[in-house]
Amino acid sequence: MSGNNSLNRRIVLNSRPFGAPREDHFRLEKNTIPIPSAGEVLLRTLYLSLDPYMRCRMNDAPSYAAPVAVGNVMVGGTVSRVEVSQNPDFHPGNLVLGCSGWQEYAISDGNDLTRLDSQMKHPSLALGLLGMPGFTAYMGLLDIGHPKAGDTLVVAAASGAVGSVVGQIALLLKGCRVVGIAGGGAKCRYVVEELGFDACIDRHSADFPRQLAYSCPKGIDVYFENVGGAVFDAVLPLLNAGARVPICGLIAHYNDTYLPQGPDRLGLLIRTLLARRIRMQGFIACKDFGDRYGEFYQRMSAWVNEGRIRCREDVVDGLENAPEAFIGLLEGKNFGKLIVRVAH
Amino acid sequence: MSGNNSLNRRIVLNSRPFGAPREDHFRLEKNTIPIPSAGEVLLRTLYLSLDPYMRCRMNDAPSYAAPVAVGNVMVGGTVSRVEVSQNPDFHPGNLVLGCSGWQEYAISDGNDLTRLDSQMKHPSLALGLLGMPGFTAYMGLLDIGHPKAGDTLVVAAASGAVGSVVGQIALLLKGCRVVGIAGGGAKCRYVVEELGFDACIDRHSADFPRQLAYSCPKGIDVYFENVGGAVFDAVLPLLNAGARVPICGLIAHYNDTYLPQGPDRLGLLIRTLLARRIRMQGFIACKDFGDRYGEFYQRMSAWVNEGRIRCREDVVDGLENAPEAFIGLLEGKNFGKLIVRVAH
Repeated sequence: MSGNNSLNRRIVLNSRPFGAPREDHFRLEKNTIPIPSAGEVLLRTLYLSLDPYMRCRMNDAPSYAAPVAVGNVMVGGTVSRVEVSQNPDFHPGNLVLGCSGWQEYAISDGNDLTRLDSQMKHPSLALGLLGMPGFTAYMGLLDIGHPKAGDTLVVAAASGAVGSVVGQIALLLKGCRVVGIAGGGAKCRYVVEELGFDACIDRHSADFPRQLAYSCPKGIDVYFENVGGAVFDAVLPLLNAGARVPICGLIAHYNDTYLPQGPDRLGLLIRTLLARRIRMQGFIACKDFGDRYGEFYQRMSAWVNEGRIRCREDVVDGLENAPEAFIGLLEGKNFGKLIVRVAH
Repeated sequence: MSGNNSLNRRIVLNSRPFGAPREDHFRLEKNTIPIPSAGEVLLRTLYLSLDPYMRCRMNDAPSYAAPVAVGNVMVGGTVSRVEVSQNPDFHPGNLVLGCSGWQEYAISDGNDLTRLDSQMKHPSLALGLLGMPGFTAYMGLLDIGHPKAGDTLVVAAASGAVGSVVGQIALLLKGCRVVGIAGGGAKCRYVVEELGFDACIDRHSADFPRQLAYSCPKGIDVYFENVGGAVFDAVLPLLNAGARVPICGLIAHYNDTYLPQGPDRLGLLIRTLLARRIRMQGFIACKDFGDRYGEFYQRMSAWVNEGRIRCREDVVDGLENAPEAFIGLLEGKNFGKLIVRVAH
């Protein structure tokens, strides 16, 4: 945390990574704290969300969002406190959800801000369970995955911000058999013992595909895809006729720099979709389902307040530690929703 | 056509092809005409439908339907006339839609039969526009493709039994820009001049991908997939954000015996689905939408009677010519819905 009250520390994209990012692809800058003009507010970042999609924004390639320009501050969702307001809709002390990015202070005209309850006990939940990851889990599972009672649902990154919520909603609402996939024994135990999944398979196990098949004796009806790579390869043969595969992320591929060696399985995948009548669909919750956020927020808030859905947070202190934490996220080192506490 | 009234000629699977089928993978057999037991009818085949999916049934591999056993009669949809009836629901002279397969006579207990209007002017339409291909086009386009006014729709095998109907429905109901893909100049001219498509690209052209891109200046919103291979490769870069890709067939792959050489583009495809929020879905109309057949039949009958939707038939005379015609179908030699006229 910055002890310096007169400077704004921010982390900018220093250069574009080719493959896995290193700390030198980021640069910590200090500049003066900006002053809001009429209609604007000055925000102090309390919590910064770190999410896998940010890796895509570091590339200069067309994706669903524009790349971060070299020298610009890294993008990211934030919970902030209004410090100074020249906007009648906001007052100093207000808590807001916004997109200040990787910096301690930011200016906003208010259009990209959502007011949070200033008495909110855990404001960081607005970046996890009650925010983009929770919304992604909710919409992808229910609107694309269409789980039914008795279905077998598999979700990868099962201890993470999205996967943990996917599994809990499927258990809570639909009575599915829920099988998680996670990296390492501690995460797998957490998913089964704390979240109540029926099983969780360690993707680092030498016989991971066999273990997954053993845990899905009736095949897989819904696979919530947020990883890709070897995890998808193990899932594909197990997908049942009529299976649904919502895709919200592909963390195993974000550092890819070239296509892997053949054979070329593109045609094999499409043939499998046909032969087993499978639906695969990529989605970005805010773009595809933006009008459903209110419904989501209401239901998820109730579940959280009732203790029926939980999320583990992995909190890192200090903006300066964001690059290392983000690099670890891409390697699966985090355990739960990764949050940087930027200020108190 | 058989001039022999005492024998049933039938074509059985002689051996399983590895790659493209040859005539020696089929065998013409003659046996006595079967006699119906109580509750059964004897059917005389008038028309046999030849469709690409039959190639999959010649393999001993799990697919959405069981393989044809070596020595068994080849499967296929048929329009037949009831010759002898021991079933009170059917009378000699009745026209029925059924699945007698590649043979002149067959026995049925009536459960797999649909009565047709005996005065029907073109009974073979029950195998095309009003049958499985038409139903496939209708459901895949409307229920998975979700075309909207102003969308660009691309359909391959555009002069064929499914593709020609997909394009015509999109023009009739939705006001889409409709671009076909077909093999050769004659088919392309037919699709544009007779069916009213906005454009049709010859997939044999050396610069086919460039021509397709030129004809889709706003990208592709719906791609109705029934081919695969190089056609899909040309389509993929043009798919817009939010595109829908119903998959009802993959004729370019049915003779595949091994995966093509790399690089492996499986991950690339999944990444594209995510980045552009694309929905791909394989379907089999009768399995996924069986309860909607009545709705389809009513609407399509009206369109056909009003001359608003048309289908070209490619009629081959004589059961003995079915193998050659079927082999040609897989090579794209047919021009329109391929039908074998087995008897008058």
